[in-house]
Amino acid sequence: MRALRLKEWKSEPVLEEVPRPEPGPGEVLVQVGAAGACHSDLHLMHEFEPGTLPWSPPFTLGHENAGWVHTLGEGVTSLTVGQAVAVVGAWGCGTCERCLDGLETYCERPDLAPVPGGGGGLGLDGGMADYLLVPSARHLVPIPDGLEVVDAAPLTDAALTPYHAVRRSLGKLGPGSTAVVIGVGGLGHLGLQVVKAITAARVIAVDGRESARAQASALGADLVLAPGPDTATRIREACGGRGADVVLDFVGSDETLATGAACVRQLGDVTIVGLGGGTLPVSFFGLPYEASVQTTYWGNRRELVEVLDLASRGLLHAETTIYPLEDAVSAYRDLAHGEVTGRAVVVPNDTFTA
Amino acid sequence: MRALRLKEWKSEPVLEEVPRPEPGPGEVLVQVGAAGACHSDLHLMHEFEPGTLPWSPPFTLGHENAGWVHTLGEGVTSLTVGQAVAVVGAWGCGTCERCLDGLETYCERPDLAPVPGGGGGLGLDGGMADYLLVPSARHLVPIPDGLEVVDAAPLTDAALTPYHAVRRSLGKLGPGSTAVVIGVGGLGHLGLQVVKAITAARVIAVDGRESARAQASALGADLVLAPGPDTATRIREACGGRGADVVLDFVGSDETLATGAACVRQLGDVTIVGLGGGTLPVSFFGLPYEASVQTTYWGNRRELVEVLDLASRGLLHAETTIYPLEDAVSAYRDLAHGEVTGRAVVVPNDTFTA
Amino acid sequence: MRALRLKEWKSEPVLEEVPRPEPGPGEVLVQVGAAGACHSDLHLMHEFEPGTLPWSPPFTLGHENAGWVHTLGEGVTSLTVGQAVAVVGAWGCGTCERCLDGLETYCERPDLAPVPGGGGGLGLDGGMADYLLVPSARHLVPIPDGLEVVDAAPLTDAALTPYHAVRRSLGKLGPGSTAVVIGVGGLGHLGLQVVKAITAARVIAVDGRESARAQASALGADLVLAPGPDTATRIREACGGRGADVVLDFVGSDETLATGAACVRQLGDVTIVGLGGGTLPVSFFGLPYEASVQTTYWGNRRELVEVLDLASRGLLHAETTIYPLEDAVSAYRDLAHGEVTGRAVVVPNDTFTA
Amino acid sequence: MRALRLKEWKSEPVLEEVPRPEPGPGEVLVQVGAAGACHSDLHLMHEFEPGTLPWSPPFTLGHENAGWVHTLGEGVTSLTVGQAVAVVGAWGCGTCERCLDGLETYCERPDLAPVPGGGGGLGLDGGMADYLLVPSARHLVPIPDGLEVVDAAPLTDAALTPYHAVRRSLGKLGPGSTAVVIGVGGLGHLGLQVVKAITAARVIAVDGRESARAQASALGADLVLAPGPDTATRIREACGGRGADVVLDFVGSDETLATGAACVRQLGDVTIVGLGGGTLPVSFFGLPYEASVQTTYWGNRRELVEVLDLASRGLLHAETTIYPLEDAVSAYRDLAHGEVTGRAVVVPNDTFTA
Repeated sequence: MRALRLKEWKSEPVLEEVPRPEPGPGEVLVQVGAAGACHSDLHLMHEFEPGTLPWSPPFTLGHENAGWVHTLGEGVTSLTVGQAVAVVGAWGCGTCERCLDGLETYCERPDLAPVPGGGGGLGLDGGMADYLLVPSARHLVPIPDGLEVVDAAPLTDAALTPYHAVRRSLGKLGPGSTAVVIGVGGLGHLGLQVVKAITAARVIAVDGRESARAQASALGADLVLAPGPDTATRIREACGGRGADVVLDFVGSDETLATGAACVRQLGDVTIVGLGGGTLPVSFFGLPYEASVQTTYWGNRRELVEVLDLASRGLLHAETTIYPLEDAVSAYRDLAHGEVTGRAVVVPNDTFTA
Repeated sequence: MRALRLKEWKSEPVLEEVPRPEPGPGEVLVQVGAAGACHSDLHLMHEFEPGTLPWSPPFTLGHENAGWVHTLGEGVTSLTVGQAVAVVGAWGCGTCERCLDGLETYCERPDLAPVPGGGGGLGLDGGMADYLLVPSARHLVPIPDGLEVVDAAPLTDAALTPYHAVRRSLGKLGPGSTAVVIGVGGLGHLGLQVVKAITAARVIAVDGRESARAQASALGADLVLAPGPDTATRIREACGGRGADVVLDFVGSDETLATGAACVRQLGDVTIVGLGGGTLPVSFFGLPYEASVQTTYWGNRRELVEVLDLASRGLLHAETTIYPLEDAVSAYRDLAHGEVTGRAVVVPNDTFTA
Repeated sequence: MRALRLKEWKSEPVLEEVPRPEPGPGEVLVQVGAAGACHSDLHLMHEFEPGTLPWSPPFTLGHENAGWVHTLGEGVTSLTVGQAVAVVGAWGCGTCERCLDGLETYCERPDLAPVPGGGGGLGLDGGMADYLLVPSARHLVPIPDGLEVVDAAPLTDAALTPYHAVRRSLGKLGPGSTAVVIGVGGLGHLGLQVVKAITAARVIAVDGRESARAQASALGADLVLAPGPDTATRIREACGGRGADVVLDFVGSDETLATGAACVRQLGDVTIVGLGGGTLPVSFFGLPYEASVQTTYWGNRRELVEVLDLASRGLLHAETTIYPLEDAVSAYRDLAHGEVTGRAVVVPNDTFTA
Repeated sequence: MRALRLKEWKSEPVLEEVPRPEPGPGEVLVQVGAAGACHSDLHLMHEFEPGTLPWSPPFTLGHENAGWVHTLGEGVTSLTVGQAVAVVGAWGCGTCERCLDGLETYCERPDLAPVPGGGGGLGLDGGMADYLLVPSARHLVPIPDGLEVVDAAPLTDAALTPYHAVRRSLGKLGPGSTAVVIGVGGLGHLGLQVVKAITAARVIAVDGRESARAQASALGADLVLAPGPDTATRIREACGGRGADVVLDFVGSDETLATGAACVRQLGDVTIVGLGGGTLPVSFFGLPYEASVQTTYWGNRRELVEVLDLASRGLLHAETTIYPLEDAVSAYRDLAHGEVTGRAVVVPNDTFTA
């Protein structure tokens, strides 16, 4: 089968022929229908020195995957061949308390996981190939009617990550509350949709790009702002002087974090999702009383089930640009040049073939 | 009546005669049975320049108060004369959403409160006097059988503050979890008791003073540590390598915050209670995933009811040293010199006199 | 001023002149803009024997009220004259733990309340008059921009009651869940809107009337059923065989309760809102494991703030038919004859007059 | 190996030799150290007609099991041979949403489970044998230091069941609250200990047997009552007239359920754990507002981890009477005659033998 392989650190990936894997007990072979190309893959190609991460090339890229069940390993009874499925990307040990609570992103025995702190496309072979070997049936979520495989793939990361961040703050997002979405890009525009879909909170969107602000308005943001010296003040005023209940920072720079801290309400949340590398100095009088600051990382199976449910009912949608597998290198090139509209999705197979 | 008055910034308080106040509609006059002397009062006496705070002298000191209902203002029907009561210290506007939710510490209309951001002993006349005028019956909590007025007074701050901090993290303190108490002083030793009383979590206590560590052991701490370069590592090991579920920092220095961040578990809490002036730089990879950092400030009526219930049943106890009102100045002097065992409590009246 | 008075049990109300009340300390006089006519008022007029309820005539009818602040009692600073306000109807003692938690519907010291277990229009003078005396400013919620006084009045009961019922089950109404609304009448059609506004749950509506089913469809119900022998089976099937996460029974008859118990999911909720007089026998194997059965009663200030926020943004709307105060008797007559479209609202004053 | 087999419905079990099972992929063979004899086993022996349950004899009895890991099936890496483990008894499909949420007691695809609605000792071979085949490593919880295998076994049911019931009501069991434990038997006396261990709630225990009441007092019950016509009244009075926050009914008869309904507080819980066959008629005015009535069934892995943690620290303890495996029939006979002190525990092996 074909696979887009990262063969060593600091190299371009190569499309080549590799043997098709066979699923062992409990495993599942998925025929890949779509694999999202993610900015973080560009980091993988270009930025890491050997030894930095707990895993290393060669492996097949692609950690946002969907397709069809092709072959069931021994003992797998909960899926049927041909069934459309999305892949939960964080593959934990499956046996520590966090994993057994369904929180594999925060696995506490990464030494027992298929790869420590990684998954398919992250140390193990991913979905930029004709087939993907998934180490357990529990990582596969049936795609509900009304949602195409090609649309499901990017949701496994770009929607799941903001969904997790919103869901943990749900108790602070009742009617009358306000969520601030900083950065209306790949994740942020889905985060905005999530808030609209599952709460009655108002949304204030902040982005420096006019096109992003237009998109935020079209998606129902109640107020859209360009970042500037008075952003926090304007947000606070729009919240009746009290501040925003929840700030979701999809950028994560020093500036955006400072804005979040300056506009959040007492008892509110400032949640860092974006990998902008910023730092927020937290001290007793530096933030409003009992405002919580935390990161969140990706999401879990339970949440992906909910994301797919929302998408199947038209409440969440990610824009995509499609590339066949043979053009996957071009997809990454376009991504690096900022020339992709929405999410770049590589399509190894258009339909299921038994 | 007698009152210990702070007459201007940067001065010693003076015991003098003042007129006894009359309660207006909805107000209550309390005959003071006990008023705790707090370190923060020393700051009030010595450190503030005029204009720094939203309120100013002259006023009577004392913000940890208990006593007996002496005179009911018009319309107050829920209390009876002679009833022993503890005073909730944070006096909000009573009309904003936070106050109506019972969170007067986080009042969002301080301009409508009796004094903005203060209360009795903090801008308004406090309890270091024969009588205390309380602006609303809602600030008074009946003291249950089994608890003396003199023991209740210090609990209104020194126990209420850690109680609020523990209660907000209750969901993370199930059996098998671990709470770290950094700083086993006036608040910390009560925080330790709170965790023991209302959860089945293990407690690890950290303090540089041998006497404080001995007290922590006596109060049931499961592990007691002196701070050092390997504190976080030892805590993490004692938690099976996973880290502590909740860190309660009653010191709040750069060093203790760094320890908290280094030993907390993914999804845990680092809660800053102490006013040590430290700063914790929070960044995406600087703390375990989704560990939350936040301050907490004092506590509320609902929580004081619960604190008094615990104390009346012997589950919480604050050590005290008693001073009559005429020796209140000595109480503060001893406090400044570190010569008080437990909490210094000033007793204007031994019993209720109609 | 004019007032529609119920002068004795088992009588028709009479419109007559009465003195305008003066607000005492903490009280507020509201100029009434709208007062909803409720079916329960018909029960008050026709069904009660003297001594059945803890209060008795004479009093002015009307417990769904909105208007404008006319005169502030001494000490009220949080409202301004002329401000549009809705009235929270459950007037508790304001001093017991439930009231201090904002749950005045469940006041535990009704002997200290203005009237035990009642309120304005229920033992005390209500809003079917030119002016309404409200015993505390805390019972008044400012009406936000975008919502008219006349539209706010019926929401204080007909929307607040289902809102409370939905909100308590919010944790069970994530994406992928299903809520069943039994009875799409005055409360039910608002309950359906509440679920749609604040959750992403699917809604199945059940009603025997074709017009009610048409309304449910128009309001976005995902499935609409007429009651019949297979209703529970059809609901269960529509929920993938698992059953409904939450059943809101706005009828409350033996039949509807049996349907709820038969279609609810393990761990789900069957909530009885309607006063249909039915009984559900609960036994160990009679319902799915850990499905909870409970009533709910009216709602509270905090929730009314949220209801009005939703309505001001067009997410909740009650149909109304308007009557001037002089036609209030006709309003009740039409209501008794089933001739009112939506909620009958009596309008004593069109606008505020100082 | 030896095994106590139920060979057909309505028969006594027989100790006989059977082949030792071999664990397949993902499975684990446990050398049994202790298996609790449960009253429900007596029902299995004597009461069921063929076809009543979804499973049938022959199978080995014993659903409360603990022992040592003997042989690991292929792919099991999270356990080590010789490790002491307790067995989670509810074996769900492992793939439905409930199972993936860790709620295998409420599995929604019992058709995919090892046996529908059963487990080891309930349709499949249980622990009254030298070895027990466990179908997945996820059903095994390491026994912490400080707890013996023989003490762990009965906790997997008799402590886990009340633990689940208490934990779901934790939010209603803050300081100042009261829990009522009806029936201080095998489960009830552990339920009482659980409330004491993980909350600061007061406990009122109700039992008709003087010995049970003495045990309740010894375990720290704040009030102990014999059932009688005024039980509910006395409970309500002991709760300041408001009623009990949580009622845990370990009997479940008509009488005890009626008592629970009559003494529960508004917003409280009446939880039916006991299989006494009673029915509680629920109607709008039949219970205090918003009091919830529900059953609970057994408990889950996550909760067993917590139960074992409590027991290892001496906070939970079940009395036991030990029988060797060859006397297992006597154990059941004594149980049937009410001649066992505490829980009857059958011990096939005293120590691990490789």
